[in-house]
Amino acid sequence: MTSRSPFGDTFEYSINATAEQERLAAFVQNDRKTVVIQGLGFVGTAMAAAVANAKDAHGNLLYNVIGVDLPDEANYWKIARVLQGLASVVSTDTSLDAAYTTAHANGNLTATFSPFAYTLADVVVVDIHLDIKKKQLGNARDYDFTFDRYKEAITTVAERITNNTLILIETTVPPGTTEKVLKPLFERVGRGRGLDTSTIHLAHSYERVMPGKEYLNSITNFYRVYSGVDDASKQAAREFLSSFINTNDFPLTELHSTTASEMSKVLENSFRAMNIAFMQEWTEFAQDAGVNMFDVIQAIRVRPTHRNIMAPGFGVGGYCLTKDSLLADWSYSTLFESDKRTAHKRLEMSLSAINTNDMMPSFTVDLLKREMSDLHGKRITILGISYLNDVADTRYSPSELFYDLCEKEGATMQLHDPLVSYWVEKARDVHTSIDELRGLTHDAAIFAVRHSDYLAMTAEHILSALPGVSIIIDAFNIITDATAEALRERGVKMLGVGKGHWS
Amino acid sequence: MTSRSPFGDTFEYSINATAEQERLAAFVQNDRKTVVIQGLGFVGTAMAAAVANAKDAHGNLLYNVIGVDLPDEANYWKIARVLQGLASVVSTDTSLDAAYTTAHANGNLTATFSPFAYTLADVVVVDIHLDIKKKQLGNARDYDFTFDRYKEAITTVAERITNNTLILIETTVPPGTTEKVLKPLFERVGRGRGLDTSTIHLAHSYERVMPGKEYLNSITNFYRVYSGVDDASKQAAREFLSSFINTNDFPLTELHSTTASEMSKVLENSFRAMNIAFMQEWTEFAQDAGVNMFDVIQAIRVRPTHRNIMAPGFGVGGYCLTKDSLLADWSYSTLFESDKRTAHKRLEMSLSAINTNDMMPSFTVDLLKREMSDLHGKRITILGISYLNDVADTRYSPSELFYDLCEKEGATMQLHDPLVSYWVEKARDVHTSIDELRGLTHDAAIFAVRHSDYLAMTAEHILSALPGVSIIIDAFNIITDATAEALRERGVKMLGVGKGHWS
Repeated sequence: MTSRSPFGDTFEYSINATAEQERLAAFVQNDRKTVVIQGLGFVGTAMAAAVANAKDAHGNLLYNVIGVDLPDEANYWKIARVLQGLASVVSTDTSLDAAYTTAHANGNLTATFSPFAYTLADVVVVDIHLDIKKKQLGNARDYDFTFDRYKEAITTVAERITNNTLILIETTVPPGTTEKVLKPLFERVGRGRGLDTSTIHLAHSYERVMPGKEYLNSITNFYRVYSGVDDASKQAAREFLSSFINTNDFPLTELHSTTASEMSKVLENSFRAMNIAFMQEWTEFAQDAGVNMFDVIQAIRVRPTHRNIMAPGFGVGGYCLTKDSLLADWSYSTLFESDKRTAHKRLEMSLSAINTNDMMPSFTVDLLKREMSDLHGKRITILGISYLNDVADTRYSPSELFYDLCEKEGATMQLHDPLVSYWVEKARDVHTSIDELRGLTHDAAIFAVRHSDYLAMTAEHILSALPGVSIIIDAFNIITDATAEALRERGVKMLGVGKGHWS
Repeated sequence: MTSRSPFGDTFEYSINATAEQERLAAFVQNDRKTVVIQGLGFVGTAMAAAVANAKDAHGNLLYNVIGVDLPDEANYWKIARVLQGLASVVSTDTSLDAAYTTAHANGNLTATFSPFAYTLADVVVVDIHLDIKKKQLGNARDYDFTFDRYKEAITTVAERITNNTLILIETTVPPGTTEKVLKPLFERVGRGRGLDTSTIHLAHSYERVMPGKEYLNSITNFYRVYSGVDDASKQAAREFLSSFINTNDFPLTELHSTTASEMSKVLENSFRAMNIAFMQEWTEFAQDAGVNMFDVIQAIRVRPTHRNIMAPGFGVGGYCLTKDSLLADWSYSTLFESDKRTAHKRLEMSLSAINTNDMMPSFTVDLLKREMSDLHGKRITILGISYLNDVADTRYSPSELFYDLCEKEGATMQLHDPLVSYWVEKARDVHTSIDELRGLTHDAAIFAVRHSDYLAMTAEHILSALPGVSIIIDAFNIITDATAEALRERGVKMLGVGKGHWS
């Protein structure tokens, strides 16, 4: 079988369960404790690097680390890359690659498809996803959610662990999950296997890992929140987290319950999402009132109590801010349903914020249509496909809705992103070089992502890259007032989200 | 005629317009410039103190200051107090009293009912209110608003000023007011009087004055935002503001238009209101999930990007946060109506936040009713009547809705506040001494305001102050977990907003 990675490398693989068990058993034949990380995605990849490089006060490596992922076409390449000493996430963080190289040389990091790994674990870190799917954009109240697959994956762990194991849940889950769903699962399966479940420690801790250059650093050098289902679990989590996080500079925060820790995570992201949505409402107002909203928020941010007010922008993407409020809403309306007071309550305001954010790119389409009422046959170039500046991740990128809305009206969409050569969600090739745009004709162009390459462009660069362009929209504060003025002098109509003073 | 102040002093007064004009003309017979402050309310009172005490580099007083208010029973006492060297606002800020004493001794601060003052002005500072009234709590979309009275008051100024006058608007107004409403007014009236309107400078600047001990200081030692309708107006405003604000430590922020400055003010307050409402939604969730929301927000606030997340609370009161979003909404839906894109648009999210905040105290009633389903005949004691800790102001206090809801269900309401002896809005006397509560019987008590006196109470104090009490609700994080535990041991049922872990 073959698995192809987003790095472009291809791996042939076959499954030999017995041989793999023997290899893993040999791998842990030493005095170190063994940490098994379930899921080599965005968090698991960085966690594996952080934990594999953790050392005691004498400089001795603390752990054997085994990453586990699935033996299928979509996932096997992650295992294969780790076995070669390579990270399984595309990142601009060179320290991540270095950490994988070091761990590979030290021989204390491996990866496997075999759930036998859990048998060997002193600690299991759960870094698999728990998805919740909106049925359509703009109606966040209506989603599909089930624990089934997540519980299946956790059951794989519960069926194999031994006594005295710490299970650390890092997945973003509906508040109450560890206490109400996973604890009963571990107790039931554990008792069925004759384990002393009082020695199975169950804890929740959420990372605050960020993509980009500080990816690995945001695991080891940042504040962590955690809790456990009982005092022993809290203690086990505290000791484990302290062994690879710089807790001198970033002390741990222990909360009173895993439900509190789970709520803290989704609340953090909902706070951001809400404040982005709030600013969108005012940005639309400012647009029509001819106000430069970027100046206004700068005036407001001088107040310490107002520093977190958000800037106007194109939209919200990525995996967390777009859905974490839904997980909370599911919990609020469902997980505490035995309590009559809570059943069927909804997080109306937070869901409404998600809707506003999901629909944000349509405001940029509106701006465009103020100047170009009929998009049919127009060549519209999107500069920026990923969901975040200087990151290649295109999951839930705002450019997607903009693309869909313009295409629906008959526009011909042209694409550029310095970091994305192929847009999976739209199954389209993307120009990565500005030079390639020179050969096309452009009626309108939209700067959608604050990639460094775009921020560095002068009016001359922009004009030479976009032959024929008559309308440019700056959807994310990429073009300065001075550059906009220079472009305007050359006959280009300039519009910008939050830049009411341009109209 | 008689005017009675909230300090308890009573003033007899009569109107002699000619004598007053002569007095004012004599008052400004010196080399200083003259600043007239229209409105001796919460902002005008502090502004008068700040401007009257402003000095040049050589220590010479810069201005004659004349405060103007109305010669009626409700307002004359303000004028009378200033004439005696006393501030016209009840405040715990001793520096305000000192500033009035000093200015009185220096002889450069007076007050009058006479609009003749505007004739003498080099600068007119407009500190009168512009009200917007909700027709009912919980439906902020529906309000009464008119410029009529405000325009009348401004016309009084426009009809009397001379050339070379700066008009500084400090009133919180719908964005666009200075540019679209006041500028045409000054031009029309000015031209009718043969003024050179190019020498009439019109600017907007908003203060960030706070009640409490830093009241005066928050005028002179804090950041200011301003703009003018043209460059000369911006410059005039900048020079005037710099003459009494410590701009070395708190540089001024100049915005590009008065509309931007006006928007900045209402956006600031709407940002706070939105974040309070957002937290209310999550507090209700946390309550049912048994989570201590105060611990959670403390865990979240370690992130610099999340420092402004609000704490749970009883409600939102005062004059600004409860209504500023409505002024913005009026502007959005009305003031730019010539622009078809804007007409009838609403700030839905911000209005919804105001509704949530206005109804917040009903959540505390719900908490009470979980334990006391029938309030009829129950004696319920509210500890805290003002809208803010250690402040006597009761305008739009959250205690009001709590009071109304409980009374409607037949409860007997008992009242305490260390700073409020008479509750104007409810026309009721209030106990100011804890000792007076000892003579009453209490079925339930609610701690509603974070007054220092309440924060200092131990379990013993609380029990001895509230004979018979069986339920205590901490609506504003006033009682510690330890005190709550001590009270619980004494048989009191403890509930608290944001304190899900207590239930």
